[in-house]
Amino acid sequence: MFPGAGEQIDAMVSPRIAQIPTFARLPFTRDPDPRVTSGVFLGVPFDGGVTYYSGARLGPTYIRIESRLLRPYNHALKIYPFKVLGAVDYGDIDVIPTSVEKTLNSIEETIRDLDSKGITPFIAGGDHSISLGVLRGLSRHKPILIHFDSHLDYWDQYWGGERYTHGTWVKRAIEEGIVSSVVQIGIRGPQYSEEDLKFPEKSPVPLTIITMDEVAYYGVTWLTSRLKSLKGKIYVSIDIDVVDPAFAPGTGTREVGGFTPRELISILRSLSEAEVEMVGIDVVEVSPPLDHTGITSLLAANLIYEAMSVKAVQTARKNLIQMS
Amino acid sequence: MFPGAGEQIDAMVSPRIAQIPTFARLPFTRDPDPRVTSGVFLGVPFDGGVTYYSGARLGPTYIRIESRLLRPYNHALKIYPFKVLGAVDYGDIDVIPTSVEKTLNSIEETIRDLDSKGITPFIAGGDHSISLGVLRGLSRHKPILIHFDSHLDYWDQYWGGERYTHGTWVKRAIEEGIVSSVVQIGIRGPQYSEEDLKFPEKSPVPLTIITMDEVAYYGVTWLTSRLKSLKGKIYVSIDIDVVDPAFAPGTGTREVGGFTPRELISILRSLSEAEVEMVGIDVVEVSPPLDHTGITSLLAANLIYEAMSVKAVQTARKNLIQMS
Amino acid sequence: MFPGAGEQIDAMVSPRIAQIPTFARLPFTRDPDPRVTSGVFLGVPFDGGVTYYSGARLGPTYIRIESRLLRPYNHALKIYPFKVLGAVDYGDIDVIPTSVEKTLNSIEETIRDLDSKGITPFIAGGDHSISLGVLRGLSRHKPILIHFDSHLDYWDQYWGGERYTHGTWVKRAIEEGIVSSVVQIGIRGPQYSEEDLKFPEKSPVPLTIITMDEVAYYGVTWLTSRLKSLKGKIYVSIDIDVVDPAFAPGTGTREVGGFTPRELISILRSLSEAEVEMVGIDVVEVSPPLDHTGITSLLAANLIYEAMSVKAVQTARKNLIQMS
Amino acid sequence: MFPGAGEQIDAMVSPRIAQIPTFARLPFTRDPDPRVTSGVFLGVPFDGGVTYYSGARLGPTYIRIESRLLRPYNHALKIYPFKVLGAVDYGDIDVIPTSVEKTLNSIEETIRDLDSKGITPFIAGGDHSISLGVLRGLSRHKPILIHFDSHLDYWDQYWGGERYTHGTWVKRAIEEGIVSSVVQIGIRGPQYSEEDLKFPEKSPVPLTIITMDEVAYYGVTWLTSRLKSLKGKIYVSIDIDVVDPAFAPGTGTREVGGFTPRELISILRSLSEAEVEMVGIDVVEVSPPLDHTGITSLLAANLIYEAMSVKAVQTARKNLIQMS
Amino acid sequence: MFPGAGEQIDAMVSPRIAQIPTFARLPFTRDPDPRVTSGVFLGVPFDGGVTYYSGARLGPTYIRIESRLLRPYNHALKIYPFKVLGAVDYGDIDVIPTSVEKTLNSIEETIRDLDSKGITPFIAGGDHSISLGVLRGLSRHKPILIHFDSHLDYWDQYWGGERYTHGTWVKRAIEEGIVSSVVQIGIRGPQYSEEDLKFPEKSPVPLTIITMDEVAYYGVTWLTSRLKSLKGKIYVSIDIDVVDPAFAPGTGTREVGGFTPRELISILRSLSEAEVEMVGIDVVEVSPPLDHTGITSLLAANLIYEAMSVKAVQTARKNLIQMS
Amino acid sequence: MFPGAGEQIDAMVSPRIAQIPTFARLPFTRDPDPRVTSGVFLGVPFDGGVTYYSGARLGPTYIRIESRLLRPYNHALKIYPFKVLGAVDYGDIDVIPTSVEKTLNSIEETIRDLDSKGITPFIAGGDHSISLGVLRGLSRHKPILIHFDSHLDYWDQYWGGERYTHGTWVKRAIEEGIVSSVVQIGIRGPQYSEEDLKFPEKSPVPLTIITMDEVAYYGVTWLTSRLKSLKGKIYVSIDIDVVDPAFAPGTGTREVGGFTPRELISILRSLSEAEVEMVGIDVVEVSPPLDHTGITSLLAANLIYEAMSVKAVQTARKNLIQMS
Repeated sequence: MFPGAGEQIDAMVSPRIAQIPTFARLPFTRDPDPRVTSGVFLGVPFDGGVTYYSGARLGPTYIRIESRLLRPYNHALKIYPFKVLGAVDYGDIDVIPTSVEKTLNSIEETIRDLDSKGITPFIAGGDHSISLGVLRGLSRHKPILIHFDSHLDYWDQYWGGERYTHGTWVKRAIEEGIVSSVVQIGIRGPQYSEEDLKFPEKSPVPLTIITMDEVAYYGVTWLTSRLKSLKGKIYVSIDIDVVDPAFAPGTGTREVGGFTPRELISILRSLSEAEVEMVGIDVVEVSPPLDHTGITSLLAANLIYEAMSVKAVQTARKNLIQMS
Repeated sequence: MFPGAGEQIDAMVSPRIAQIPTFARLPFTRDPDPRVTSGVFLGVPFDGGVTYYSGARLGPTYIRIESRLLRPYNHALKIYPFKVLGAVDYGDIDVIPTSVEKTLNSIEETIRDLDSKGITPFIAGGDHSISLGVLRGLSRHKPILIHFDSHLDYWDQYWGGERYTHGTWVKRAIEEGIVSSVVQIGIRGPQYSEEDLKFPEKSPVPLTIITMDEVAYYGVTWLTSRLKSLKGKIYVSIDIDVVDPAFAPGTGTREVGGFTPRELISILRSLSEAEVEMVGIDVVEVSPPLDHTGITSLLAANLIYEAMSVKAVQTARKNLIQMS
Repeated sequence: MFPGAGEQIDAMVSPRIAQIPTFARLPFTRDPDPRVTSGVFLGVPFDGGVTYYSGARLGPTYIRIESRLLRPYNHALKIYPFKVLGAVDYGDIDVIPTSVEKTLNSIEETIRDLDSKGITPFIAGGDHSISLGVLRGLSRHKPILIHFDSHLDYWDQYWGGERYTHGTWVKRAIEEGIVSSVVQIGIRGPQYSEEDLKFPEKSPVPLTIITMDEVAYYGVTWLTSRLKSLKGKIYVSIDIDVVDPAFAPGTGTREVGGFTPRELISILRSLSEAEVEMVGIDVVEVSPPLDHTGITSLLAANLIYEAMSVKAVQTARKNLIQMS
Repeated sequence: MFPGAGEQIDAMVSPRIAQIPTFARLPFTRDPDPRVTSGVFLGVPFDGGVTYYSGARLGPTYIRIESRLLRPYNHALKIYPFKVLGAVDYGDIDVIPTSVEKTLNSIEETIRDLDSKGITPFIAGGDHSISLGVLRGLSRHKPILIHFDSHLDYWDQYWGGERYTHGTWVKRAIEEGIVSSVVQIGIRGPQYSEEDLKFPEKSPVPLTIITMDEVAYYGVTWLTSRLKSLKGKIYVSIDIDVVDPAFAPGTGTREVGGFTPRELISILRSLSEAEVEMVGIDVVEVSPPLDHTGITSLLAANLIYEAMSVKAVQTARKNLIQMS
Repeated sequence: MFPGAGEQIDAMVSPRIAQIPTFARLPFTRDPDPRVTSGVFLGVPFDGGVTYYSGARLGPTYIRIESRLLRPYNHALKIYPFKVLGAVDYGDIDVIPTSVEKTLNSIEETIRDLDSKGITPFIAGGDHSISLGVLRGLSRHKPILIHFDSHLDYWDQYWGGERYTHGTWVKRAIEEGIVSSVVQIGIRGPQYSEEDLKFPEKSPVPLTIITMDEVAYYGVTWLTSRLKSLKGKIYVSIDIDVVDPAFAPGTGTREVGGFTPRELISILRSLSEAEVEMVGIDVVEVSPPLDHTGITSLLAANLIYEAMSVKAVQTARKNLIQMS
Repeated sequence: MFPGAGEQIDAMVSPRIAQIPTFARLPFTRDPDPRVTSGVFLGVPFDGGVTYYSGARLGPTYIRIESRLLRPYNHALKIYPFKVLGAVDYGDIDVIPTSVEKTLNSIEETIRDLDSKGITPFIAGGDHSISLGVLRGLSRHKPILIHFDSHLDYWDQYWGGERYTHGTWVKRAIEEGIVSSVVQIGIRGPQYSEEDLKFPEKSPVPLTIITMDEVAYYGVTWLTSRLKSLKGKIYVSIDIDVVDPAFAPGTGTREVGGFTPRELISILRSLSEAEVEMVGIDVVEVSPPLDHTGITSLLAANLIYEAMSVKAVQTARKNLIQMS
């Protein structure tokens, strides 16, 4: 019954409601073999960085459950993501629930280790503060940060000095020089002030804000065209609240009027046509206690699947080039 | 207070929260009079054919509750569906919860009996395996199967030999020669393999797959144009998971990125313009235990209402022709 | 910590999950100073006028909770609504839960008093019957009623003589001569009869019905163009069920196939470009017991925010004109 | 499949999840035959008399659904309640949702009619104001009122003159001279003042208050001994909030620290040993929107079943006496 | 991080919300070493044998999640159950969702294999039909069946011939001669007829029924005294509906008035004082879709823990005797 | 409408569903007058110290909502708690969500200030780590800590050095010398090791553990007798998980088999007969996202009410003594 890297437990033999839920029913291993595995799922069950509703620490648990429906072949991208990546479930990082900073260190260490072995992390959060730890672990790449969110997460600090939260990580990442540029997509909702959307002017690295209103006005195709022209290394970070609350009620800081999953998935897939190398990706802020029917976790599982597929397309293309 | 066939309890007299919930507050009878009744609602509370989450056996119970809001006149199609069909609530089929095959026999028998009297069944499932029983009962029509779903339901068997499940009924229906052709609409999500969407090539009857991606790309109007050109007898089977999980969380095998109800209803209504005769219709896979706020049952009730309206338009047109 | 009129408790000092939840964390006062305050939030926790599911009496409680996420600056309209209006939370009207008519009197009195001081009410219901009380309180303006709803609410009476319900208030308002004309937007779903949509022909004041089907067919831009050409005083009444049940499950009389929040918000914002004066606005029929994840209350809070922003734009424009 | 009065649809033939849910799967009739039927279930879907959370209008709908599990034989009381009573489901009274007083009239009329035919009503509310209408309909009996509740419901009026609410019906019933005495059981929770529990001193009819604290202190057996010594005609009214919120979360005015169902059922059963004649009974204040898992409706269905059993024991005993 | 048999992932190192949820965070293995492991957790995710609400197939998934809180030491029984048993999580049996009989075969085979290695199964269902498969696998022991349930499960067949369901397994087990006697504890609720509780008279093996009413009347101590006097091999089967619905809402066939967990756990623990050998145990009928807050799964996890503790006490005692 | 200290908004004038929800509808003030106010409600919306499920930061918000049912007179204790204490709602402490230690400082400061004015705090958490801050603020009293909980909270540290969590605060309080002795009531569930319940032997201050099993065995009266003999200053800290999950599902670390509210309230009330001075009290670990029907918040509100009543009895007695 138990499969090798990149293979799922066969649903035609063992029903999907059976067996301990690893991501997509892939094998679990803490020690992936870099010769066969170039991508792993891992969870970061931490929500100590949230400013509003907590609960995202349960994200990995419930995303795994809903991921049991995922199947091997991505018809839209014509790829077998798990097989191409030799994907496995790496388990979760041992976070320190009461300390953002120690948790960031833990994350950084694990990610750096995986990255050094050529293994790309596909991460389920956790709140958005964890992305800083991941980017630190990937610092040698200094990627473009593709940031899907309804919020800017670009504040300096909260409550008289708190510098590491889910609302400040973008600013920290820029300050720490670990991203080369930032593209923020889906920004919407009320802002603190008219200064908020002027951050790009002050940013030491190129920072582009694409609001939800702009996407609604110019169209998804306008956006995907822009993304397809990207070049270089990218890191993709998806705050699930970029999606409308109807499709993703299970998140802490909901903003009405967001993307539909059909839109977001087509945007994500467009990255498969860009000349980029995806060095990692996270889907964060899934808060199962607020997700009574599981649809937010299901969506997160599918977004990770699509991201794995994009990476697999890149990998297959690269292999093709290397072979030729 | 108690109405005749095709009439609802008057909400202006008896509030909609009152009285035992029959479908749309129509009269219940196990013995409809074919002289006045040409369409009945009936439930098939069976979920013994599911491969993933169970719960659809409660569909008829909750669809009836949410159907209490339905009113007599369909403004979009300019028709009084209940009146035209002399509609009644026939109650539920006595399924055998522990046996798919015996249940299929029960369904077949009831449907054949109704059909022989010229009464069209409008069915609330239950899981999708029940559609095979219905099609058997309607076998003399050998209709075109219009199948709305996110899944193909075209597998041969599960778990070493299970041939009758909600994932195999389309294959069985084709094998048994009880459908003349198949149109599958809304297919999406990960597949088992690249072979999956090549089923049409091997099918002994014409089988067309229209994916959700295609509809999103070409537009709903492209699809409705195609449907309007259909000719002959049709059977419509709607797996509620063809709709996006935000609109239909209460179903067992959810796939993100589906139709919106606005889209699906306009597609369904387009059948009123085709030269077809609808010999039956089902809405299946509504699973109330996963539908915390009742919106999935509500949608199912409305889809049945729209289907009744389409049939009523066909009936009215036919009557007009016969009269002239 | 405690702010003046138009100012919110600072989330960078006191986290949004803290403190007694007033609307948008604005100061509460029963005695707003007309020199600084030209707009107030107030709740009308009444659901004694509903014909179907009750629960809307809890609307104000939960809308306040979800409103804690609102921030000062509306980027889309380039305005600080709370600051411009000197907004405060006025608390709730002391309704009489067992009497529609006494409650209407209470509402009328409070609204008339606020209006006489030049203070615009931004109201959270409660069921739709309350809008009649508000319109009576604003009768000196005799505004155009912009009515967003999936239902016409234009019936004469229910159950042998009940004239004051959430389904009759539009008819009453017209009869009482307190609105100059009516525009109904979003109408959909089954009707009682083909006569229903012919109400405009019989109405003593101009009455326009714009169905959801029409908006879907002609496009949102078609609708906003029409709204931008409005002139005069307007009162906006939003039944949350104008939105699709996926986005607003928490309401009593849900109709599938409604607006998305993105559509509705862009329609609402278009009023900021019309030469109109908004004399009041309500968002009604939010029923928290049916809103398990809070997204309906969240949406209602945002709609009130957008309406305040529209009013603030009008106010700012007027001030500009007066200054020049 | 369809049974006669006093008989249920056979669950060994038609599974309990099937068929339109009448109470306990008994036959529905609006015109019970007094020769075979001496007890009917009926619903009163009204919640216009509540002072706090609404929702009880949905009580009859959901109590019927959960009642499908009830079976013919009460082993504890050694009786077949449905058979002895020739029980049927009478449907619901056509309440006027917006008017307490008109609804009371409707109830009174129906109950008086049934009572005149010798048919005992077993009622599912609805809020507690409805009990006044029932008692009016039964006024010829002037019964002892056995009132299970955590609240006294003995206030004179609310909000400057509202005399008919779920908090005033006991006072009205005493004033109207339609009960001979009152026993209130389960009273607990905070009171308005120390005067509250002194009502008995001022009551024109004997009024006994037995608090939850007393039952907890003296024991359930102490209470049942007292009840067994009752003589004469009784009417039993059970506010489901007499039960602890853990067992009955689905009600509007919950008080912690109430009865367990085991306690309440044994108390109810003790009435079968008293020399009393039960002329009617209601279970009220079940509010399904607050009852996410259905256990409150299930409990209510069982309480009605036990009350029917008590009545059946009385009936059987009387028949025995008459025969001898 | 990863522990040996009988050891849990250390919560002081890896927070309990982290890592893939095996039962009690014990190691997962499909091939337990009989030299160190004498007890395993295993799941049977099957609900194809239910007559009423489905959903129990998700039991193992959610019981594992809630089991993460379990700690090593049972203070009441003074034992380390996991350590003594060298416990591991064996995963789930590959059930055939559409076939009771094939699933029973699967179960039997696995259980027989484990039993032949001297490994005791601690099972999470699944519906109650699965217990028949387990008992078949343990047939060499012909144990006393200690059956906790609110229902007798002793019917011959349903729906014209269905002999394998969750309501017939006790009768089948007796007929098949695989239990030596039966003790049923907690029986309550309405029965089909007065014959139901007379089953013992007709049973070919000794069958004792202890109703909930008897336990309530004579006291829990009366019951535990009886249980402590048991001798021989026992199999314990716990239908979670033996517990009151307030404590276990998440089950399909709820009966009001059941045990409290405090009662049930003290009853279970009393078996540690009897001269018996527990050859297996199951906790069945946990239906997560009906268990909105997870407390039913949590209770099931604790019941399995207590049963493991009882077994561990027996094992420790036996070892002591063998050593002496 | 707006009342003075110790007075509630009159529910007979303004319905309880109306107005911004302060605790028990008492007036809100950040600056209570010590001449009239000797007790305040305050919230501490912090859950950064939890080791398992988060969510308790929303405790104060939802406890306030459910507290609207509280009335002025406690019949059991014959006291008007709000009036005697001149109670007000002080609002919430401005916690620092991302830092336990800074939050502890904030709490300490506020509590010390209130205490210096002779005002007793009645606190709604937040997680249990906050109690350490409160005890620090009350350090001049060095009270006996009466600790209701299913867990010991006496660990030294978590995850390699985290000393301030909801599982370590009792140990810290003892180490810091701010409590004179500790009584722990309700301890149950699995432990880490047999050493756990031997903490008292090593504790530098007297520490008594009373397990749930002991209370169940010896009876509640045995416990209340012991509590009535207490003398001196006490601080009462109630982890809501001391109550059984059926009554308090909304908490993060549930243990089956706990107190019923009836038991806990009678225990709490017994303190009114002891010669003690209550210097403060908290109810913590209420996690609304896990409390779907609000009963946990309701229970917490009632526990605070009973604690206020105990304090009021003490105050009244003291005043009586002073007067005499």
